[in-house]
Amino acid sequence: MKAKTPKESRAIQTDMVLPNDTNPLNNMFGGELLARMDRVASIAARRHSRRLTVTASVNHVAFNKAIPLGSVVTVEASISRAFRTSMEVYLDVWIEDRESGMRTKANEAIFTFVAVDETGVPVEIPAIKPETDLEVSRYEGALRRKQLSLVLAGKMKPKDATELKALFFD
Amino acid sequence: MKAKTPKESRAIQTDMVLPNDTNPLNNMFGGELLARMDRVASIAARRHSRRLTVTASVNHVAFNKAIPLGSVVTVEASISRAFRTSMEVYLDVWIEDRESGMRTKANEAIFTFVAVDETGVPVEIPAIKPETDLEVSRYEGALRRKQLSLVLAGKMKPKDATELKALFFD
Amino acid sequence: MKAKTPKESRAIQTDMVLPNDTNPLNNMFGGELLARMDRVASIAARRHSRRLTVTASVNHVAFNKAIPLGSVVTVEASISRAFRTSMEVYLDVWIEDRESGMRTKANEAIFTFVAVDETGVPVEIPAIKPETDLEVSRYEGALRRKQLSLVLAGKMKPKDATELKALFFD
Amino acid sequence: MKAKTPKESRAIQTDMVLPNDTNPLNNMFGGELLARMDRVASIAARRHSRRLTVTASVNHVAFNKAIPLGSVVTVEASISRAFRTSMEVYLDVWIEDRESGMRTKANEAIFTFVAVDETGVPVEIPAIKPETDLEVSRYEGALRRKQLSLVLAGKMKPKDATELKALFFD
Amino acid sequence: MKAKTPKESRAIQTDMVLPNDTNPLNNMFGGELLARMDRVASIAARRHSRRLTVTASVNHVAFNKAIPLGSVVTVEASISRAFRTSMEVYLDVWIEDRESGMRTKANEAIFTFVAVDETGVPVEIPAIKPETDLEVSRYEGALRRKQLSLVLAGKMKPKDATELKALFFD
Amino acid sequence: MKAKTPKESRAIQTDMVLPNDTNPLNNMFGGELLARMDRVASIAARRHSRRLTVTASVNHVAFNKAIPLGSVVTVEASISRAFRTSMEVYLDVWIEDRESGMRTKANEAIFTFVAVDETGVPVEIPAIKPETDLEVSRYEGALRRKQLSLVLAGKMKPKDATELKALFFD
Repeated sequence: MKAKTPKESRAIQTDMVLPNDTNPLNNMFGGELLARMDRVASIAARRHSRRLTVTASVNHVAFNKAIPLGSVVTVEASISRAFRTSMEVYLDVWIEDRESGMRTKANEAIFTFVAVDETGVPVEIPAIKPETDLEVSRYEGALRRKQLSLVLAGKMKPKDATELKALFFD
Repeated sequence: MKAKTPKESRAIQTDMVLPNDTNPLNNMFGGELLARMDRVASIAARRHSRRLTVTASVNHVAFNKAIPLGSVVTVEASISRAFRTSMEVYLDVWIEDRESGMRTKANEAIFTFVAVDETGVPVEIPAIKPETDLEVSRYEGALRRKQLSLVLAGKMKPKDATELKALFFD
Repeated sequence: MKAKTPKESRAIQTDMVLPNDTNPLNNMFGGELLARMDRVASIAARRHSRRLTVTASVNHVAFNKAIPLGSVVTVEASISRAFRTSMEVYLDVWIEDRESGMRTKANEAIFTFVAVDETGVPVEIPAIKPETDLEVSRYEGALRRKQLSLVLAGKMKPKDATELKALFFD
Repeated sequence: MKAKTPKESRAIQTDMVLPNDTNPLNNMFGGELLARMDRVASIAARRHSRRLTVTASVNHVAFNKAIPLGSVVTVEASISRAFRTSMEVYLDVWIEDRESGMRTKANEAIFTFVAVDETGVPVEIPAIKPETDLEVSRYEGALRRKQLSLVLAGKMKPKDATELKALFFD
Repeated sequence: MKAKTPKESRAIQTDMVLPNDTNPLNNMFGGELLARMDRVASIAARRHSRRLTVTASVNHVAFNKAIPLGSVVTVEASISRAFRTSMEVYLDVWIEDRESGMRTKANEAIFTFVAVDETGVPVEIPAIKPETDLEVSRYEGALRRKQLSLVLAGKMKPKDATELKALFFD
Repeated sequence: MKAKTPKESRAIQTDMVLPNDTNPLNNMFGGELLARMDRVASIAARRHSRRLTVTASVNHVAFNKAIPLGSVVTVEASISRAFRTSMEVYLDVWIEDRESGMRTKANEAIFTFVAVDETGVPVEIPAIKPETDLEVSRYEGALRRKQLSLVLAGKMKPKDATELKALFFD
């Protein structure tokens, strides 16, 4: 299978924050944002793999910025790295100020998807060939994050997570 | 403020998986489950703090078990540890087999919420006093996870995350 | 089939009242509450019977207490009595005050469900063995309510509804 | 206030049964039908009273007929009788066969609404002047049903419910 | 096939405008109104043809009147003219003032539907026999509108659209 | 106000077709697509004008291509021409084949929005400066379409619609 660039799978979803998406402070529920991110990430994963895809995990996500009712929210997802049957999807969330037109980064998140056939069995997928500096940096970080996932899931011993250890001691 | 037990804040939500919650393999979207977990976790956080609460972060979540259309899904949330203005909420997700009545663990997840006043400013909350062995173990793990969050957010140097380093190298 | 206790089938659903659930006075629509109660009751009926279940009827429900936007609403359902193929499900609805943490009873309701096989044909179900005083009292009332249903549906002559007549004239 | 006819407040809602409205047997949830009925009944109550209205109660409802996915469902609501500040709303639910065009009665239900001002305080409403035989019969039955409600709510002694007693012993 | 009158297919849907249907000015989104109109129009088309129906087009629609949150909106649809396998559906949208009870026309729209069999192949449908003056006028206009559609779709040369040209030069 | 290019206001929304969006043939309802288009178009209009915007009209839309359940649908909207306070928004709808990755045009539509202040009063907006050939062609067509709208609304005499007449008789 021929490797693909992140750009080939990029998925973009711009939509509004409606009343039912908001908490009593009139800001978007964190969970509603996660649900939108999961849908857009799964579309990017389908585009890269040309297969059905299922969510395998979501990395740590911080909600640093409140997103008020009526905001225009843009979720952008691209494949940052592909493994044998799984893909890391990197998401950027932007909100924009109506009056100035200025875009602000509201969130980042990282989901992992697995490509499957119609019976749910994992299938192989193309590799990723990063192009821009940002893509290269996300591509490299993906291995560290994969090790962290495996350690957290008890599937890898911490001492074998060489990339991850470097994070803590380099 | 008097410390409270995890049981005092426990929130339970049993509901079905409806058609719009499912992907083309007829299993629940990961993002829909995250959205339900966020709502139940926020209720547990409100119960503990008696304040409005906002989602601060969600820890790494793995989706190991497909949840088919029509399933009965139970999300249970309790506060595992309280810090000054923030709380870690631990969630367990169960599905049950209709014919045997057997309950299976489908997922675990950990969210962090901050208690705020009506203007969104963080406010102090009661401590947690764990009772059962499971509660004690989750209480203790919470400090490690907090350090991991701070490191991932670039707000703590890895070398200062003593609890966390112990996880990897003891 | 071995009789079961009400506790074995208890279903609990805690959720928030969102903007789309509310009328122009910003209180929850009665019909939205009925829809939630029907879903939770059907889960309790599934748990008791381990079968698919369909709503047969809802008894008289009074809405005495307004439930404001943003409330945390808990719906609890248990089987109060089982007949040959049908079950009476008793529901209690609670709302809680965020600041004091006090729970208030907002509603009670009684639904009847029928257990069916995959083709929709009614099937036999286990009996109910009430344990607490409240469960015993609801168990006993169930027979009277069944007679009232039959009379209202024109399927029993009022003079044969001996339990029911006792309600009015003893 | 001048009395009005039931026809002046009649509200009609024809809509489809969509996937999310259905249970695992692919029939409409009873609770979803109750939610639609509540909305249409409240519109009829608003039309009669020209006030905001809130659901006070729903009478016993039997679900005798399954309503399959894709059905066209018509809910019709009219005021059957008005008391000082409350109204009984009578609902008829029809489904129609696409091929023959034949309409079948699927359900009946009776809701009670109270007219209120902007602060939620009950206000007086016009009387009802029934015209057709069906309207007269529903108008007369309304008093009996009101007594049943009061008895069930413990607000009237059974022995004072003269109209209701007649139902059982005439 | 015997011709039918517009009245035989009339479909009426009265419902409220809920928070999620509204824009930041608290008025109904134009697109939400179009979605409701499409559903009601498709029911009228099913009633006329007794077949499954699919939306073929929507004519120019102007939104001249804002519809505020909480409004009661009535959408009425009737077949204005039937061609071989397609039907023009004419919709009138009304809102009513709660206090005065006065109904105001909020919108008109014209959709075209095609009747199809279970495999999606177009099938012949009955003709329309208009009765009232309004129905006759809409019946006659339908031919002009059909020509306009064909011209806009590049399927008819403007010079052959004789009915349409008359609109501009008579 | 400085003129802007169509690219500056472009809004893109990629999302899936879920069960509740589909008719009994398992294809997307036309009305659901119109509702999505209205939301994306309004975002493009906000971006161009940096104002609140309201839907003024939707031009003739043809639904030539069925969009099946599970499809990935991309709606792209750009301002094609700005008048004093109103904008024409041109929408392209694409679906993509999962296996081949091929994108197919499913629909085009044209909406008109008006920019308003917080009280709903129309306000002036920047002009559009088209860049590509397609943008120039849409820009030029916009004037003809505006005349057609005015004629259809009875606000311009057909004989004065010089651009439009040219469409039919040149």
